[in-house]
Amino acid sequence: MLFTAQQLATVLKGTVEGDPSVSVHDYAKIEEGKPGTLSFLSNPKYEHYLYETAADIVLVNNDFKPTKPVKATLIRIPNAYLALATLLQLVEQNKPRKTGIDPTAQIASTATIGKDCYIGAFATIGDNVVIGDNTQIYAHCAINDGVKVGSDTLLYNHVTIYQQCKVGDHCIVHAGAVIGADGFGFAKNPDGSYFKMPQNGNVIIEDNVEIGANTCIDRGSMGPTIIRQGVKLDNQIQIGHNVEIGNNTAMAACSAVAGSTKIGKDCIIAGFVGIAGHLEIADNTTIGAFSGVSKSIKTPGQVYHGAIAVPAMQNKKSFAVYRHLPDLQKEIYALQKEIALLKEQKNID
Amino acid sequence: MLFTAQQLATVLKGTVEGDPSVSVHDYAKIEEGKPGTLSFLSNPKYEHYLYETAADIVLVNNDFKPTKPVKATLIRIPNAYLALATLLQLVEQNKPRKTGIDPTAQIASTATIGKDCYIGAFATIGDNVVIGDNTQIYAHCAINDGVKVGSDTLLYNHVTIYQQCKVGDHCIVHAGAVIGADGFGFAKNPDGSYFKMPQNGNVIIEDNVEIGANTCIDRGSMGPTIIRQGVKLDNQIQIGHNVEIGNNTAMAACSAVAGSTKIGKDCIIAGFVGIAGHLEIADNTTIGAFSGVSKSIKTPGQVYHGAIAVPAMQNKKSFAVYRHLPDLQKEIYALQKEIALLKEQKNID
Amino acid sequence: MLFTAQQLATVLKGTVEGDPSVSVHDYAKIEEGKPGTLSFLSNPKYEHYLYETAADIVLVNNDFKPTKPVKATLIRIPNAYLALATLLQLVEQNKPRKTGIDPTAQIASTATIGKDCYIGAFATIGDNVVIGDNTQIYAHCAINDGVKVGSDTLLYNHVTIYQQCKVGDHCIVHAGAVIGADGFGFAKNPDGSYFKMPQNGNVIIEDNVEIGANTCIDRGSMGPTIIRQGVKLDNQIQIGHNVEIGNNTAMAACSAVAGSTKIGKDCIIAGFVGIAGHLEIADNTTIGAFSGVSKSIKTPGQVYHGAIAVPAMQNKKSFAVYRHLPDLQKEIYALQKEIALLKEQKNID
Repeated sequence: MLFTAQQLATVLKGTVEGDPSVSVHDYAKIEEGKPGTLSFLSNPKYEHYLYETAADIVLVNNDFKPTKPVKATLIRIPNAYLALATLLQLVEQNKPRKTGIDPTAQIASTATIGKDCYIGAFATIGDNVVIGDNTQIYAHCAINDGVKVGSDTLLYNHVTIYQQCKVGDHCIVHAGAVIGADGFGFAKNPDGSYFKMPQNGNVIIEDNVEIGANTCIDRGSMGPTIIRQGVKLDNQIQIGHNVEIGNNTAMAACSAVAGSTKIGKDCIIAGFVGIAGHLEIADNTTIGAFSGVSKSIKTPGQVYHGAIAVPAMQNKKSFAVYRHLPDLQKEIYALQKEIALLKEQKNID
Repeated sequence: MLFTAQQLATVLKGTVEGDPSVSVHDYAKIEEGKPGTLSFLSNPKYEHYLYETAADIVLVNNDFKPTKPVKATLIRIPNAYLALATLLQLVEQNKPRKTGIDPTAQIASTATIGKDCYIGAFATIGDNVVIGDNTQIYAHCAINDGVKVGSDTLLYNHVTIYQQCKVGDHCIVHAGAVIGADGFGFAKNPDGSYFKMPQNGNVIIEDNVEIGANTCIDRGSMGPTIIRQGVKLDNQIQIGHNVEIGNNTAMAACSAVAGSTKIGKDCIIAGFVGIAGHLEIADNTTIGAFSGVSKSIKTPGQVYHGAIAVPAMQNKKSFAVYRHLPDLQKEIYALQKEIALLKEQKNID
Repeated sequence: MLFTAQQLATVLKGTVEGDPSVSVHDYAKIEEGKPGTLSFLSNPKYEHYLYETAADIVLVNNDFKPTKPVKATLIRIPNAYLALATLLQLVEQNKPRKTGIDPTAQIASTATIGKDCYIGAFATIGDNVVIGDNTQIYAHCAINDGVKVGSDTLLYNHVTIYQQCKVGDHCIVHAGAVIGADGFGFAKNPDGSYFKMPQNGNVIIEDNVEIGANTCIDRGSMGPTIIRQGVKLDNQIQIGHNVEIGNNTAMAACSAVAGSTKIGKDCIIAGFVGIAGHLEIADNTTIGAFSGVSKSIKTPGQVYHGAIAVPAMQNKKSFAVYRHLPDLQKEIYALQKEIALLKEQKNID
C-alpha cells in the first residue's frame, strides 16, 4: 500500500513540511532509509542521519529544529516515536492472525477453551484449565492443570505454565518463559543435606503484562508471586517466590529479584540488576544497569546505581575518584615526604 | 481437614501455649493470616506481624520470647521453619501424583522404562535410555540417546537432556533446564575464525539434586561435568564444561561457573555470582551476591564478597571508604594546602 | 579402534618421543589418564600431571621442555590443543548421524526441506519455511513461518525461531535458544502505562555461527539484528534488538548486549558482561568478565575490564588501591595529625 505524506499527516494529526504528495510503501531506520520508505527521528544522537537519509518521509517532534538542509519531507507531530508506533500497530493489526485448534494439541476434557482461540501443534492443556477468548497459544506450550489464562493473550512457543498459575488478559509471554516453577526454599538438615520447603503458592500475572523469552517467575512458597497490571519484563529475568511487582514497572533483561521483595509501581529497572530478598522498593524508583540492591529503598522517585547500589549521584562521584585512586595514593605519599622534610628542616633550624 | 493445636503439637513434638482446642484447615504467611489458618514465625524481622496476625495457630522457635500480648495459640518447637516444612510435605505427599505413559510419548524400542513411571504427552525418549522406577517425565521433555535417569526423579516440562548424560535418584529438574549442551571450547585458526573443540564428555548428576528452571549444565569436553549429591541449583544458572560441584552446595539464581572449576562441599553461593574457570573453591565457602571470583579460595569456611571477590569483611571496609572517596580526596587537597602554607611561613620566618 | 603413537604422529605430522609402537583406544584428560588412553598438555598449569599420568601417549607443543622424567610417549606438534581437536573431530565425523523425517513432525505443505535432512519428533515447520541440505532439526523445535535455515546446520531440542528469521549454513544452535522474540521497546502513555512498539524486524544469523543453550537473540524493531559469520555465543546470552555482532567475535555465558549496539569483528567478550545500548565497540576489543560497558570503545585492540569498564590496566591499578582504601584513609588521618603537630610546634616556636 502507498501512503502520501499528506495522508499520514492527516492520520497522525501532524503538519507536513516539504512535498505533501511524496509517497511511501515501507518503513526503515533513518540510517538505512531508502526511497519509498518512511522513517522517524526521536533521539537527537541520530540527527546527523536526517541530513543524509534517502527515506522520503521522516516523522520528527514538533520542537525539532534542523541545523542543515533536509531533503526528506518532514511530518511534525508531538512525539515522533509514538506516532511511528501508532502507524506500525495499525499495520500489525491488519496482519493475518493464527486461528483454530491444531488436531495434535492435547486438551484435557475438563479444560475450557474460549471463542476464536488458536492452539498450536502439540500444545498441552491440562485438567481444569480455563482459556479466555481470542487467546493464542503457540505450538509446544505446556499449560498445566488448573491454570487460568485470560482473553486476547498470546503465548509463544515452549512456554511452560505450572499448575494453578494465572495469566491475565492482553498479556504476551515469549518463548521459553517458565511461570510457576518452585521457589528456591530449603532448610538445612542436621547432617548438612537440604530439606525442600514445599512451594504451594502460585503465580498471578495481571492484565497487559509482557514477559520476555526464557524469563522465569517462581511460584510462591505460600501465597502468590504477583505481577501487577502493565508490568513489562524483558528476557532472561528471574523473579523469586512471593515477589510482588507493582503496576507499570519495567525491568530490562537479565535482572533478578530474590524472594519476598516488593517492588512499587512505575519503577524502571535496567538490565543486570540484582535485588536481594525481603526488601521494599518504593514507587517510581529508577535503578541503573549492573546494580546490586541490598537495602530497601523507601523514598519514592529516586535514582539508584552502583555495584552495591547507592543514590546515582553519589555513585558517580565515588566512581570518578575510584578511577583516579592510584594518583590519589601517589599524592598521599608525596605529602608524607613533604611533611618529613618539613620536620627535618625544623630540627635543623 | 481440621487439625487442633493439640494434634499438631503432638505430631511435631512441640508444646502448646494458649488454647489447645483451636483448629485450622489451611496455612498462610504470618502477614496474611486469616481465621482458621496456621502460620509460623522464624525470621525475627517479621516478629511484629505476630502481634497483629489473624492466624489461629503460629509455630515459633522454643527460644522465642514475645514482647507484646499474642492472640494466636503458639506451638513451640526447636525449629519453626522446619516444622512447617514437615507439615507441608505431609500434605504434599497425599496429593495425587501423575501416572501412566501418554500414548503420544515417543519412546525408542531400545529404551527401558521402570515401574510406575509417568511419561507425559509428546515426551521423546531416545535409544538405549534407561529410566528408573517411579520417575515422572512431564510433557515435552527431550531425553536423548543413551541417557540414564534414576528412580523417584521428576523432570518438569521442556527439559532437554543431551545424549549420554546421567541424572540420579530423587532429583528434581525444572522446566526448560538444559543438561549436557556442548561446552564453550574453541581454538583460533590462523585466519581468525574459530575451530570447534569437540565436546565428547557428559554430565553426571548424582542423587537428591534439584536444578532450577532454564538452568544450563554443559557436558565435559573430555570426561564429565559432575554435580554431586544434594546440590541445589536455582534458576538460570550456567555451569561450564568439566566443572565439579561438591555435596550439598547450594547456588542461587543467575550465578555462573566457568569451565573446569571445582567447587567444594557445603558451599553457599548467592545469586549473580560469577566464578572464573580452572579454580578451586574450598569446602564451606560462602560467596555473597553479585561477586566475581577470579582466584581460587583455598581455606575452607570463609565468606567472600565483592565485585572482584575478596574476604567479605575486607570488602565491607573498602566499600565503606569507597562511598566516601570524594570526601577523602577533598581532605588530601586540604592537606596539600596546609603544607604549602606551612612551608611558606617557614620561608617567611 | 587402536592407534599406535607412530600412526597418530603420521596423521598429525608430529614427531614421536618414546615408544612409537604403544597404542591407544580412547582419550582422557591428563589428570585422569589411564593405560590405553591418549591425552594432551597445552596449559603449563597442568604440567605436573604429565609426570604422573597413566595415559600412554601425550600430545605436547614443540617447544615444551619436560623438567622431570616422563613415562608416556610424547608426540610433538606445533599446537597440542589443536592437534587433539583435529583427532576428536575425525572421531566425531565418523559417528552415526541422525537422518530421516520423523512421521510426527508437523511440516507445512508450503515448506521446502533440503536433501538428507533430519527432522525430529514433534518438530513444527511453518509456512514457507526453507531448510537447506543436510540440516538436522532435533525433536520439539519450533520453526515459525517464513524462516530460512541454511545447509549443514544443527538445531538441538526446543529451539524456537520466530517468523521471518534467517539462520545460515554450518551453524549450531543449542537447546532452548530463542531467536527472534520481540525486542524490548515501549513508549509511555500519558496515564503511565506502556505502549508496545511493534517489533517488525527479524534476526539474520550468518554462516558458521554457534549459539548456546537458552541464549536469546531479539528481532529488530525495524530492520534486522545481525550475527555475522563465525560468531560464537555461549549459553544464556541476551542480544537486544538491532544489535550487530561482527565476524568471529566470541562471547562467553550470561553476557548481554542492549539494543542497537554494534560490536566489531574479532572481539572477545568474557562472561557476565553487560553492554549498554546504542554503543559502538571497535574491532578486536577484549572485555574482561563481570564488566559493565556504558560508553563506546572506539580504538580497536584494547582490553577493558571493570564494573564500569575502563581500560584493564587502569582498572587493575585502581582496584589494587581500592582493596587498601581503609589503610589509605588511616594514612590521611595520620598526616592530618602530623600537620596539626607541626603547626602547634610552629606556634610554640
